[in-house]
Amino acid sequence: MLGLMQDRPLLISSLVEHAATFHPDTEIVSRLPEGTVHRTNWRGIRDRAKQVARALGALGVRPGDRVGTLAWNSHRHLELYYGVSGMGAVLHTVNPRLFPEQIDYIINHAEDSVLMFDVMFAPLVEKLAPKLQSVKAFVAMTDRAHMPAADLPNLLCFEDIVSAQGTDYIWPEFDERSASSLCYTSGTTGNPKGVLYSHRSTVLHSLMELAPDTFGISSTETLLLVVPMFHANGWGTPYAAAMVGAKMVFPGPHLDGHSVYTLMRDERVTFSQGVPTVWMLLFQYLDAHPELDARALGIKRIGIGGAALSRAMLERFERDFGAEVVQGWGMTETSPIGAINTLLDKHKRMPEEDQLRIKLKQGRGVWGVDLKIVDDEGTVQPWDGKAFGHLYVRGPWIASGYYRGEGGSPLDAEGYFRTGDIATIDPDGFLQLVDRAKDVIKSGGEWISSIDVENAAMGCPGVAEACIIGVSHPTWQERPLLLIVRRPGHEVTREQVLEFLGQRIAKWWLPDEVLFVPELPHTATGKLLKMKLREQYRDYVLPTAVAAT
Amino acid sequence: MLGLMQDRPLLISSLVEHAATFHPDTEIVSRLPEGTVHRTNWRGIRDRAKQVARALGALGVRPGDRVGTLAWNSHRHLELYYGVSGMGAVLHTVNPRLFPEQIDYIINHAEDSVLMFDVMFAPLVEKLAPKLQSVKAFVAMTDRAHMPAADLPNLLCFEDIVSAQGTDYIWPEFDERSASSLCYTSGTTGNPKGVLYSHRSTVLHSLMELAPDTFGISSTETLLLVVPMFHANGWGTPYAAAMVGAKMVFPGPHLDGHSVYTLMRDERVTFSQGVPTVWMLLFQYLDAHPELDARALGIKRIGIGGAALSRAMLERFERDFGAEVVQGWGMTETSPIGAINTLLDKHKRMPEEDQLRIKLKQGRGVWGVDLKIVDDEGTVQPWDGKAFGHLYVRGPWIASGYYRGEGGSPLDAEGYFRTGDIATIDPDGFLQLVDRAKDVIKSGGEWISSIDVENAAMGCPGVAEACIIGVSHPTWQERPLLLIVRRPGHEVTREQVLEFLGQRIAKWWLPDEVLFVPELPHTATGKLLKMKLREQYRDYVLPTAVAAT
Repeated sequence: MLGLMQDRPLLISSLVEHAATFHPDTEIVSRLPEGTVHRTNWRGIRDRAKQVARALGALGVRPGDRVGTLAWNSHRHLELYYGVSGMGAVLHTVNPRLFPEQIDYIINHAEDSVLMFDVMFAPLVEKLAPKLQSVKAFVAMTDRAHMPAADLPNLLCFEDIVSAQGTDYIWPEFDERSASSLCYTSGTTGNPKGVLYSHRSTVLHSLMELAPDTFGISSTETLLLVVPMFHANGWGTPYAAAMVGAKMVFPGPHLDGHSVYTLMRDERVTFSQGVPTVWMLLFQYLDAHPELDARALGIKRIGIGGAALSRAMLERFERDFGAEVVQGWGMTETSPIGAINTLLDKHKRMPEEDQLRIKLKQGRGVWGVDLKIVDDEGTVQPWDGKAFGHLYVRGPWIASGYYRGEGGSPLDAEGYFRTGDIATIDPDGFLQLVDRAKDVIKSGGEWISSIDVENAAMGCPGVAEACIIGVSHPTWQERPLLLIVRRPGHEVTREQVLEFLGQRIAKWWLPDEVLFVPELPHTATGKLLKMKLREQYRDYVLPTAVAAT
Repeated sequence: MLGLMQDRPLLISSLVEHAATFHPDTEIVSRLPEGTVHRTNWRGIRDRAKQVARALGALGVRPGDRVGTLAWNSHRHLELYYGVSGMGAVLHTVNPRLFPEQIDYIINHAEDSVLMFDVMFAPLVEKLAPKLQSVKAFVAMTDRAHMPAADLPNLLCFEDIVSAQGTDYIWPEFDERSASSLCYTSGTTGNPKGVLYSHRSTVLHSLMELAPDTFGISSTETLLLVVPMFHANGWGTPYAAAMVGAKMVFPGPHLDGHSVYTLMRDERVTFSQGVPTVWMLLFQYLDAHPELDARALGIKRIGIGGAALSRAMLERFERDFGAEVVQGWGMTETSPIGAINTLLDKHKRMPEEDQLRIKLKQGRGVWGVDLKIVDDEGTVQPWDGKAFGHLYVRGPWIASGYYRGEGGSPLDAEGYFRTGDIATIDPDGFLQLVDRAKDVIKSGGEWISSIDVENAAMGCPGVAEACIIGVSHPTWQERPLLLIVRRPGHEVTREQVLEFLGQRIAKWWLPDEVLFVPELPHTATGKLLKMKLREQYRDYVLPTAVAAT
């Protein structure tokens, strides 16, 4: 028997309509590429999103078609978030930091019919254009006065095509499971794979972002979105903000410490989200300007994800800013909320040092994300904070597969998505990432966390960068090989490193060899390319292997 | 094109599973009918809900079958919330305060196959039993030691049937639009009508209750649920609390001031929800015990709905308790969130008196509830805070009709539900109820709010109760007739009342006549039965009507 409640589909257009209806005058502030600050409001965003939808229709874009963006965070990007998805087309946010050959692969794979880009990417787009077979129109996200002189076929000006349209547009209604946006993972192996979000998954994820147990986003908030909008839906915040009509502030391409600091100060930002790298830039700026008082910013919370939060960063935000830090774990495939670190009531009565230990975990599960950790044989591991396991997640905003079936099904028999991460979970459901599954070193049936060893090695004086990989071993299956880049002018030795590590990690985790290398390979987004190193050292014979043979 | 996200149904069982997994030890505290305090936790509730599901299966209950409850708030009622809906059956919460003939009508109309009841309702159930054709088993919600000596066919003991079952039960998965619970409106006209909620509507509504713009329920909360669980899903809180694993406190039948106060104090309650009447009892208790310090309770928020919040009540909670008041508007048909009063950021910078004026409105629209006000011809009225209109609402947790099609479709052509309320909406989307549509007095094409006139009359010294109804008038279509019950020992006159009103309401709103009556008729839930009065005074000739003829 079905219930008798209204059968309203969960659609992204309803978010911006809510904001425009109940919070029409709440501001949307953007720092433009030129450095000037632009102001509009939710009513303006909704109206322009409707104009975008009409303009795309005029360009021949139909429901289900993909529209690519190569853009920083701005009101125009927000208008595309709502205009493209709202009309039923698919917003494909492309990461401009990828290698050009990845970008053209992605755009061709997605078959984007229109490509919207910020003016600073004009030279890149010009270079890529001949290879982009599906793109029928290139749209520079600027006004007539700032149009780039680019040699592009069918080059259009965003402000021209938008202002040519009226705002009399009624959002279409359709199946809430329809695709709304597309984001490719920048995998370290193989080609990038596309995660295809739906209206339903996006709306449910937005609702969860309002919960005080996650980001607690409310109408009284001023949100500075530092995390790029081409990263997993800008962490979902452009949607959640509309759902409650929060004020939004976009930094454009200006992520330097001075720009971020002044936006925080001038707009009275209460909450900002970003990856640790950007916060390091902010800290460096404040270090260089001791006359500035971070606490006077009045910022209440900082959302951090994308990479592990360090103790130093956590403490500095708490101490210098008087801000709470909300760490989260997620992936492009998880929309991205997988786990969020907000303390339980009982933690608040603990000594500060114990609280800190908990705050540095990646986070606690939220409703909508089922978690499990399993060993290589698929046996579920206990939640004791010690047992390692492959992390699997399941829920209505978790991917079920990749665009055009790439990579086959990532789900297990119970419908859980294999994250590729190794984690522990404690009795309170707090997740701690231990390693990537492909990086963990399997020594005699036990697992060694490459992250833990690397973090320990990074603390050794004279070490600029450390990377540990598993190398085959006749007795132990694999044993760790540590690769180190020395700091310029430092002459740290193999023995000093091993001595240092010996005091910090389990004896059987100690690397069997330490090699000093001039540099280590990285991906476009700055991650260590361990795959390449494993390839390079595949036949490396560890001294302990010689002894064992 | 559909997205590639996991197709997980939104099911009520997932809420209690989340709570049991991530917050297993968080307490669920109940004051039992006997007065003693019972403690369990979310793990216990989940396990017992599974036992309930198995026990119902053993009684022959199948998915879609209705299971009735006549019960106060307790852990057992919570176990039924999850056990019944979780197994796919429909939880039918019956309001024990209704007239017995309404109760048997409702249970027969719903065709409940099992009736669960608190022991104090045994005499009532005994009386009703012969008329309840569909009920195959009567279950007293108690243990063997407290079983009532009732003459009932197939009388079972809740604790016996639950403890006979194991906890090894896997929640079934099914269509999220399936019916989950049923609640009848206690309408003032005609028979009660059943609102049939779905798993989907309940989960979406729960998500919205987490938002700081509504109730902001989090895992750190201790919730005292004073509003009965037979009123519109207990305002959704039993579900929202599980979604974040909040501590819950149930008062059982003990709603007197002393009981509520001691639970608040002993359990360190942070948030409590209830109707104004219960808070009046708490205030009276505190008045009688000036040695008690309400502020020391540390309660942070009070949720109020079901009837208008008075200025005196708002001020007392703020001043004496140091608590924030969150007023809401809703109906059984709206799950019940329709609008919630949380201030916008700009309001917080207003003078206190202006804030107060806003806080006394019923609330602001939230995402998921589209609002509109229209005149008698269906023309949409402006949101200026002045124009009156019939209030219509639309959204995924709003009813589309009533059980078994009673009353026909309550939706208009756009799919909006007609609430039967008359309201204004201000430019910020704050709703203010003006009247019930059937009570508003239509005088010469203009509308007079019976509520406003009654509230004004209630302030007149010597008036115990006031009721205004429209009486037909040859010139004006209708004009107001005011009926007054005098306070014992007071001799307030017609002239004094009119003089008093003349200084408070518009001249054309002044009643054409004032009659003093010994008493006024009420519904079972304490509302004025104006229908009956309109019937009684249908042929009443106003003095102004005589003059006009």
